[in-house]
Amino acid sequence: MKIEALDLFYIALPEIRPAADSSQDSLVVRVRGDNGLVGWGECDGSPLGNLAAYVMPMSHLNIINLNEALLGETVDSPDDVVRLRAKAGRYGLDAQQIDHAVAGVDVALWDLVGKYLGEPVYRLLGYEKSYPKLPYSSVLFGKTPEETRRIAMRISNDGYGAAKFGWSPMGEGTLEDDVALVAAAREGLGPDPQLMVDAGVIWGSDDAAAFERAERFAEFGVTFLEEPLLPDEVDAYRRLTDRRPSVPIAAGEGCDFYRAADDLMVNGGIDYIQIDVARIGGITVADRVCRRAQELGVTYVNHNYKSHLTVAASIHVFAGIEEFGLFEYPDGTSPLIRGLTEPTGIIVNSDGMVEAPDIPGLGVEVSTDALRKYLRAVRIEVDGKVLHETPAI
Amino acid sequence: MKIEALDLFYIALPEIRPAADSSQDSLVVRVRGDNGLVGWGECDGSPLGNLAAYVMPMSHLNIINLNEALLGETVDSPDDVVRLRAKAGRYGLDAQQIDHAVAGVDVALWDLVGKYLGEPVYRLLGYEKSYPKLPYSSVLFGKTPEETRRIAMRISNDGYGAAKFGWSPMGEGTLEDDVALVAAAREGLGPDPQLMVDAGVIWGSDDAAAFERAERFAEFGVTFLEEPLLPDEVDAYRRLTDRRPSVPIAAGEGCDFYRAADDLMVNGGIDYIQIDVARIGGITVADRVCRRAQELGVTYVNHNYKSHLTVAASIHVFAGIEEFGLFEYPDGTSPLIRGLTEPTGIIVNSDGMVEAPDIPGLGVEVSTDALRKYLRAVRIEVDGKVLHETPAI
Repeated sequence: MKIEALDLFYIALPEIRPAADSSQDSLVVRVRGDNGLVGWGECDGSPLGNLAAYVMPMSHLNIINLNEALLGETVDSPDDVVRLRAKAGRYGLDAQQIDHAVAGVDVALWDLVGKYLGEPVYRLLGYEKSYPKLPYSSVLFGKTPEETRRIAMRISNDGYGAAKFGWSPMGEGTLEDDVALVAAAREGLGPDPQLMVDAGVIWGSDDAAAFERAERFAEFGVTFLEEPLLPDEVDAYRRLTDRRPSVPIAAGEGCDFYRAADDLMVNGGIDYIQIDVARIGGITVADRVCRRAQELGVTYVNHNYKSHLTVAASIHVFAGIEEFGLFEYPDGTSPLIRGLTEPTGIIVNSDGMVEAPDIPGLGVEVSTDALRKYLRAVRIEVDGKVLHETPAI
Repeated sequence: MKIEALDLFYIALPEIRPAADSSQDSLVVRVRGDNGLVGWGECDGSPLGNLAAYVMPMSHLNIINLNEALLGETVDSPDDVVRLRAKAGRYGLDAQQIDHAVAGVDVALWDLVGKYLGEPVYRLLGYEKSYPKLPYSSVLFGKTPEETRRIAMRISNDGYGAAKFGWSPMGEGTLEDDVALVAAAREGLGPDPQLMVDAGVIWGSDDAAAFERAERFAEFGVTFLEEPLLPDEVDAYRRLTDRRPSVPIAAGEGCDFYRAADDLMVNGGIDYIQIDVARIGGITVADRVCRRAQELGVTYVNHNYKSHLTVAASIHVFAGIEEFGLFEYPDGTSPLIRGLTEPTGIIVNSDGMVEAPDIPGLGVEVSTDALRKYLRAVRIEVDGKVLHETPAI
């Protein structure tokens, strides 16, 4: 089939809070084939910034927008998706936001080709079967240990077998304050569920502060300590991992391209690589990182904190690899997380596990009602020419 | 002084050609202090994409735009610029295009503070004096060896002591075609000028192809072979440099942040690191890479192919380091290269050298006539609210 249109929808909650909660808005991408099939994807990052990469006027040979790169192209197979992803990357080589932006259309193309061929995406990636994974409820810390404990109790009552707590106030007070937060999370969860801690890059390049926390958190049975340091600080990650902290170290959500992930794994020495399919340029690149992680003996985990469109894209990437058994499962309060794809979604089953749907494509569908409800109308003009106007749903 | 306004001007030639020539457009940033002083900077990358980073609606804690981060802040000293650069980076942590976008305002803030304190930027960076550098005329290959030879003769006649030829048709034909291009460049230059070759990432991850070229180009006295491989392919750079090719290897223009440059130097093993101050987040980050290069024994060279605003910003970064003696000097035909700052600019002196101006700030001034002439009017609306409209010049 030929790519007939790329439709871009900026959606957002009516009010955006300055919290570390990226489920408050999104750029949703719809790819329409000339046979009537559609595929859906979503970008992390700034919706307006990502939208610009689809419509930006040509600057030169290496800054040509995604519409120019993709409209009218033929896409019938996984090889076509990989070819088009590479073309889009070449066209946008010098536009920094290309990776976040192309992620949406890459995911949508995998969805589209899956529907076209009648195969779930994980099979297009070469996996015979998919394995269930243990979802960890991904939430923010409460403002106090007590609030954190209550959140943890709720998660435990909801039946989750694992939970990750993240960001503020972790790292903003003393070491003992940090320990109290983790202790409260464990207390609220009870002894059995896995517990992860996301430090939200709070210690910058201070590997000693990170090491001290990892040692203290160990007594609470922490599965991993995530992003204790800034993504750029690969040498600091190496200093940290060389000391073999008692809690394994996870990082990678900030990786916008393959090399950044490989660098963190090889040179940073991390134990878990966490890839956001909606940032790293889509399923095509996430798949490459996943295979590289297997080679290196690093555990691949998804990062995602957007809608179930991205939750679905995330699980297909490593569905076929049994030993990569954990799955980040956004569990915030934003109605975009589940609402965008209702009634479809990646549902926790009665065993407390999640699995890639055995349905052609991603296995979830965008609700046009939800799109309409949260849509923000965007209009971009240059010299009076309209480069973008929100399309009809 | 307080930052009163960030004014954004998208300028472009009337017609943009799909050539590897990034001097065809720009996003120019003017910072206005509340004392009437102004500073100027420029971003590489997509003007529309960069502009979005200044006005994008907040997505969450880690996607807050540059206007929010900087307006109303106090900036009186180099320390303030460094502090504000870090703040802008935190506010934009998850918006991929933040580095290209912040480059413009970072450069403008250094210009502003230099004017405020009555010091050229290189002195603000801690250098007592500036050293002259040998500019290499940076041009594209001709379509044929014969056309390349004529371009080289023109450069030689213009009195340049060095020249770099780049991009297509290098790597598009056979090995012998590539050799013929380099031979023609050398023939046209004559025996004395230094000659550099920019392969424009044409061999992807094929280090063997790059090595073969380096060996063959050596007989023409090539100073360095630039970007034979894709910026992402650090392992391929390492395989190439481990074979110690007869021509030194240069790379780095694609580095959008500090770690990417450090990675190429430490793990890629390159001999020259080429940093574009208008991409890597401004003078603040370029300065950090420059000092790291000194530690590692790697030669720092600027990359730039925009206006003399960026040429000036580039030279201040390493003006004080005598052993970093080469300077990329854009020598294309776009009237934006020299026209944007006319009559000021970084002029090749009678010894064939360039030097950082001993004038407060960057030492060049933007021509408002040029801005007016090439201005593109931009208007961005979200839900009927105007987020950006081109300001008065």
